[in-house]
Amino acid sequence: MINEIYLDNSATTQCFPETAELVSRILTEEYGNPSSMHHKGVEAERRLTQAKETLADILKVSGRNLYFTSCGTESDNLAIAGCARANQRAGKHLITTVIEHPAVIETMHALEEEGFEVTYLPVDSDGVVSPETVAGALRDDTILVSIMHTNNEIGSLQPIAEIGRLIKERNPKILFHVDAVQGFGKAQIYPKRMKIDLLSASGHKIHAPKGVGLLYVADGVKIRPTLPGGGQQGGMRSGTENVAGAAAMAFSAKRLYDHLEEDVDRLYALRARLIEQLQGLDGVRVNGKPGRESAPHVISLSVQGVRAEVLLHALEDRGVYVSAGSACSSNRPHLSETLKAIGTPKELLDATIRLSLSVLNTEEEIDTAAAALLEIIPFLRKYTRH
Amino acid sequence: MINEIYLDNSATTQCFPETAELVSRILTEEYGNPSSMHHKGVEAERRLTQAKETLADILKVSGRNLYFTSCGTESDNLAIAGCARANQRAGKHLITTVIEHPAVIETMHALEEEGFEVTYLPVDSDGVVSPETVAGALRDDTILVSIMHTNNEIGSLQPIAEIGRLIKERNPKILFHVDAVQGFGKAQIYPKRMKIDLLSASGHKIHAPKGVGLLYVADGVKIRPTLPGGGQQGGMRSGTENVAGAAAMAFSAKRLYDHLEEDVDRLYALRARLIEQLQGLDGVRVNGKPGRESAPHVISLSVQGVRAEVLLHALEDRGVYVSAGSACSSNRPHLSETLKAIGTPKELLDATIRLSLSVLNTEEEIDTAAAALLEIIPFLRKYTRH
Repeated sequence: MINEIYLDNSATTQCFPETAELVSRILTEEYGNPSSMHHKGVEAERRLTQAKETLADILKVSGRNLYFTSCGTESDNLAIAGCARANQRAGKHLITTVIEHPAVIETMHALEEEGFEVTYLPVDSDGVVSPETVAGALRDDTILVSIMHTNNEIGSLQPIAEIGRLIKERNPKILFHVDAVQGFGKAQIYPKRMKIDLLSASGHKIHAPKGVGLLYVADGVKIRPTLPGGGQQGGMRSGTENVAGAAAMAFSAKRLYDHLEEDVDRLYALRARLIEQLQGLDGVRVNGKPGRESAPHVISLSVQGVRAEVLLHALEDRGVYVSAGSACSSNRPHLSETLKAIGTPKELLDATIRLSLSVLNTEEEIDTAAAALLEIIPFLRKYTRH
Repeated sequence: MINEIYLDNSATTQCFPETAELVSRILTEEYGNPSSMHHKGVEAERRLTQAKETLADILKVSGRNLYFTSCGTESDNLAIAGCARANQRAGKHLITTVIEHPAVIETMHALEEEGFEVTYLPVDSDGVVSPETVAGALRDDTILVSIMHTNNEIGSLQPIAEIGRLIKERNPKILFHVDAVQGFGKAQIYPKRMKIDLLSASGHKIHAPKGVGLLYVADGVKIRPTLPGGGQQGGMRSGTENVAGAAAMAFSAKRLYDHLEEDVDRLYALRARLIEQLQGLDGVRVNGKPGRESAPHVISLSVQGVRAEVLLHALEDRGVYVSAGSACSSNRPHLSETLKAIGTPKELLDATIRLSLSVLNTEEEIDTAAAALLEIIPFLRKYTRH
């Protein structure tokens, strides 16, 4: 069996073994329903509260402003649709960018059908939206701006704090949502300092299980819940809480944030190490800004003359797992809106792969992946036709 | 430390240890994203497909008709709201009962705000809705009937097959949703034979983790998805699939259904054993129909002269965990709509506890619980005032 080199961490991550142990313990021992009044319920509720406190410490907010959902998609959806529907008397104009995740874009499309008007802002050739562009799009009837922290396909970082400042300068009542599914666990994100009213994150992108998401909602922000029912979590999100998932997300997040700076340095070094080794290859373009101006964990490569899917499978044969396009949405092939938005030439749209790192990756793995790319790309160019 | 006797299995269950092991293995080894094109993605997708096949075999349906959600509440919500919104051109009348779970009732209330009309059917003094009452409420503009399989508070069983037959006799286009969150894992439920178009179930009620639910959707049934995004699960439910949760739900379900008949016999015997031992107590009423006409796992006791919460905590002191009211919704105290609906005298509304069993309970536990009740109830009656 070949050694697996997993470089698809923006699609999903391996759960930390210690996190999986915690999950297992909660499932078999502390399995109570947080809504139950007896000891086992209280124990489960304490787990939830502790998880919120841990995550609140990381974000420098209060635990009472945090809610658990089932995934990043639900967090985005609840933040955007819940907020738009609750605040539509103040206006029906929403702003986002063309490179958001489908969880945001498709929610915006659904809201357009409900009568909201959405402005989709362009990005520059590095995948960055300018704060001035955002400011210029604000209107008297704008109620919500939603901009992602880190792009999932090319790793571009948005100037969140600057955008937050400009929005609130124009009108403090305009709400600012940040999809931080790719940024949480990789960057310090402080909603209060950055003027963020709503923040989404996901467990399975940070070495916790799939099936749990997080939503931060600032004090005073009105949301119409999207899932009616038993009124759990103060009515914000009904349904029995995924206690193990919530505790696991907090546990993995704390582990990451306990030494975030050094891990991020190491990820940037791994990223640079890989890119460095590909210098000798002609016709390979690294998308997005260089160095620390992009996310530490995403490497988007457009490879002239090689179809992404073919390259993906050739790498897979050597145990190297990467993605073609974003791959954290459905597996129906489609051309990436993000790549189009940064002006990727048509012939490179289906010739772009993404390598995404995590703290579990090693220098040796990066070297093996680089060596595989160096060997496979010229080979494929020689032997495949387009 | 006292031995724990967990009799609150309708609120949530202990995850089977073997199921927790499977969860752990998937989280740390088979952690791929089902949408990824490489081996780890394919492996994860295979887990999902296998989980659907296993659950489909139990329900005698096809795996392509099954979808995973984040919980029973989401399954109910997607079935009812998704179906109402998609079919409103055919009519805007919905039918349900007054004793449904809040996941159904609150979804109905939300739909009323959207302009739908809802008929809430009464039940008899045993908590059963008569098929004739359902048939009598059907109208030309009725598009959906939603009736629970097993009531969560008193364990009453609804005549689902008979209701299904009457609905389809009137108009095959009227859709029939069954909330089987309490019934799945305790009874053979065959959607096709019972004319059920939509069926909801939940993982954590059947010894699988919290955070996963199941929805069966018959061929040809139109649903408008409630969670827009990446288009996973054929667009029915976006968001990265909770692979471990889905596999765990299928694993626990198979374990239960592999010897369902004998387990159900044993649960009925345990239930009868407990009730038998309480015969000597005056002023204790067992709600719902006797014997096999009620669910095998729910025992609802109205105890004259004793507040449910006090009794709950007195039992808790002896390690016996039960619930006051339904307790699978939020822990804000409220008087049970189900108990009101069956005509429970006012003074017994807050004097009713629920003991709910699982296959993990033993005769010894039942005897200990019965002995505790026999001792505590007269004591509380003597020393507490109302």
